[in-house]
Amino acid sequence: MNKAIILVSGGLDSCVTAATAHDAGFNLAFLHLDYGQRTEVRELKAFTDIVDFYSVSEVLSVRMSHLVEIGGSCLTDTNIEVPKANLDNSDIPISYVPFRNANMISVAVSWAEVIGASHIFIGAVEEDSSGYPDCRRDFFDAFEKLIIQGTRPETSIKLETPLIHLDKSQIIKKGVSLKAPLHLTWSCYQAENIPCGDCDSCALRARGFEKAGIIDPILDLA
Amino acid sequence: MNKAIILVSGGLDSCVTAATAHDAGFNLAFLHLDYGQRTEVRELKAFTDIVDFYSVSEVLSVRMSHLVEIGGSCLTDTNIEVPKANLDNSDIPISYVPFRNANMISVAVSWAEVIGASHIFIGAVEEDSSGYPDCRRDFFDAFEKLIIQGTRPETSIKLETPLIHLDKSQIIKKGVSLKAPLHLTWSCYQAENIPCGDCDSCALRARGFEKAGIIDPILDLA
Repeated sequence: MNKAIILVSGGLDSCVTAATAHDAGFNLAFLHLDYGQRTEVRELKAFTDIVDFYSVSEVLSVRMSHLVEIGGSCLTDTNIEVPKANLDNSDIPISYVPFRNANMISVAVSWAEVIGASHIFIGAVEEDSSGYPDCRRDFFDAFEKLIIQGTRPETSIKLETPLIHLDKSQIIKKGVSLKAPLHLTWSCYQAENIPCGDCDSCALRARGFEKAGIIDPILDLA
Repeated sequence: MNKAIILVSGGLDSCVTAATAHDAGFNLAFLHLDYGQRTEVRELKAFTDIVDFYSVSEVLSVRMSHLVEIGGSCLTDTNIEVPKANLDNSDIPISYVPFRNANMISVAVSWAEVIGASHIFIGAVEEDSSGYPDCRRDFFDAFEKLIIQGTRPETSIKLETPLIHLDKSQIIKKGVSLKAPLHLTWSCYQAENIPCGDCDSCALRARGFEKAGIIDPILDLA
């Protein structure tokens, strides 16, 4: 049975990604990356709940405090305000954490090489996304080439992005069909008790559930 | 004046790399990455001494404790013994820290994007090296392609590896000609007071100085 590392933030996309890897029969190892985002405490709870749900025994939680020190994003620098959602804006938003995904995948590859994982699953979404450059499949293709160059010759690691071309409503439907624990997830960029409803992430989630014709279970619980 | 981030461990190669960037007229920013290597305390002192030598004001020191948690190398896992030097062995040595350089350069790129640095200098050596896959120019070429894919469209960052095709004696001669503070550097993988003389890094350094016909100033001080 092949081993896969899943990057699990605790959000909707990573939860459905974990469900996809589980459904494909992989032996799961979960990696959580805390980069000082505002809602980290709530996200970590979501992560732990999803670990328990899938009874995952190989777990690594990494604090990347340098992304806070470096700043440059409203997610990591509390001096930068989280803007109201504007899903029609095609610019790269201020929530973009510079080169964040490269930092995360590098950790995952280091871990994969040591524990012998052959696949890394990431819930990145290119369509219907917030416009982050490091969420495009071209980025992951370039990263796979980097892995070939930068690891032992016998190491083979594929980057799986099962959601990359789905929109939020398709992700939600996929999650429901895979019995993913969507009720355990957290998406809001700003609040930790009740989703603010105003940030990009809340807006994307709300639009996705509406389009899918499904009631968001975390609102149902609220 | 263009700004360059220099990865400065405190060793010989990064010191000569800093001297090269300084000589080329870049505005210097120094990045030190502590990945839990055995001799970190001594390396950090070397780093600080080199910061002072070049009067660098933009400095970032990052603790990447996950590379210790992940382990898999004699540099980060104290349960794995540092072997005696064997410079004729063509296998990848146990001192290889899995995908370490990708972790480091990812941090550097995040920082570069925020502070507006156009170049990142790394003292990687392909020839006469310890056989690390992530020290080859092919790896850095692949990383430059990754940067293009994973950062803002207006971001342009080049990875400079001025030592990549030099052997240790050529690096030492280059350092002397650039008046690099070689007396402030530290190379030993194992000891923090007097170099052990037995590890790969000590052996490479000793062979380099001997071939260059120069007395190692840190032995002169000892």
